Amino acid sequence: MKDVFLKPGERIDDLQRNGCRIIQDPGRFCFGMDAVLLAGFATCRPRDRVCDLGTGTGILPILLAARHPEAGPMEAVEIQEESADMARRSVEMNEMEGRITVRTGDLKEASRIFGSDVFDLVVSNPPYMPGGRGLTNPSEPLRRARHEIDCTFEDVAREAARILRERGRFALVHRPERLAGIIGTMLHYRLEPKRMKLVHPYAGQPANMVLIEAVKGGGEELKVEAPLIIYREAGVYTDEIYDIYGY
Amino acid sequence: MKDVFLKPGERIDDLQRNGCRIIQDPGRFCFGMDAVLLAGFATCRPRDRVCDLGTGTGILPILLAARHPEAGPMEAVEIQEESADMARRSVEMNEMEGRITVRTGDLKEASRIFGSDVFDLVVSNPPYMPGGRGLTNPSEPLRRARHEIDCTFEDVAREAARILRERGRFALVHRPERLAGIIGTMLHYRLEPKRMKLVHPYAGQPANMVLIEAVKGGGEELKVEAPLIIYREAGVYTDEIYDIYGY
Repeated sequence: MKDVFLKPGERIDDLQRNGCRIIQDPGRFCFGMDAVLLAGFATCRPRDRVCDLGTGTGILPILLAARHPEAGPMEAVEIQEESADMARRSVEMNEMEGRITVRTGDLKEASRIFGSDVFDLVVSNPPYMPGGRGLTNPSEPLRRARHEIDCTFEDVAREAARILRERGRFALVHRPERLAGIIGTMLHYRLEPKRMKLVHPYAGQPANMVLIEAVKGGGEELKVEAPLIIYREAGVYTDEIYDIYGY
Repeated sequence: MKDVFLKPGERIDDLQRNGCRIIQDPGRFCFGMDAVLLAGFATCRPRDRVCDLGTGTGILPILLAARHPEAGPMEAVEIQEESADMARRSVEMNEMEGRITVRTGDLKEASRIFGSDVFDLVVSNPPYMPGGRGLTNPSEPLRRARHEIDCTFEDVAREAARILRERGRFALVHRPERLAGIIGTMLHYRLEPKRMKLVHPYAGQPANMVLIEAVKGGGEELKVEAPLIIYREAGVYTDEIYDIYGY
């Protein structure tokens, strides 16, 4: 664990796996369970070249690198310079500089940055909410992380499809409310959904997150896995959540 | 309950709701839990004009009529004359002739039979399996009920979209393996998925059925409801299944 410089408002959070830590600023955007579940859900194989589109503070590549020590080189793109800077310092702090490269850049140009057919796995925890016009969220960085201001889901899917090699995987977390359109857009870009997992806060409640993994050019056959239930009762996680957090 | 004529091989099964019964022939195709769950899932409102595309022995309209005494007139289309004939006799036996009309016909021509923008609710439990070429299923009626021989899912969605009024509902049961393509096809025909329920045999297992309700011309917002688990343990249904069977 290397010492790194912290800017005003930033703090270091323990990720509780392999001693990993991350720099966050509660006034900007802190990672959520979404990212942790996606890192646990995505299929990452030895030597896989990985790209995270819209990495924020770098939570996804850091978790993936911690969980898959045998994975290949990871790239992460983030349009907000302050977030990318935090991500770079977190990578340095975790001594993952040889494994993860963070670029300040626009994911809409990922295929220009990296070229086509490059990655085995693309992951993304993109903004969930459409538009963002007329919203009064006082924090500009938060608004850009949550709303489709800098990019739409179509941008993410298009670029993922381009930078993935044929049969490469695209793993995503999003809101179930958007699921139909997400699947329609994936199919348009030849990203065939192959695995899906719905996340429900409690067993008897509607889903509030969906995890999907698509294969570029894959055949039609979706496996809807057992649902993931977050809470057994108020304040008590289910065993599965403890397992996911415990790697 | 009216007396009706039974053909060789046919039997009468009690539907265990409102005294309803249905004629089936085990050598042909007997309804499954799929139809019962769909009848429980579909939104059916008072005076709704209902159409079942590919009704088989009429299980869906009979269950819907039993569950929703205030529903409007129901139409049911079935291409196999022997099944349509059983459906008609079951309707008669249940004294539902005034409520359900069974037509021997091709669902691919539903919009020619009924016209456009006619129904408030279209339901379907279509063949789940593609093609059917080279299959050695010895029973021709079974093969036609299970495989996309007489119609594809695209035919069902296209005709449902045509015969539904704007904002009318299309409720469907199918296999999760096909879900991505089903959603893509629905969107193509302006059938926007609004409610979805995954059915899992046990809590920790992948889904083996999916229930979807789309709205013609609806806005994008899908609610993924709590999953439906069939068995609490081997041979013991969950309370929710007892509830669905108990109306």
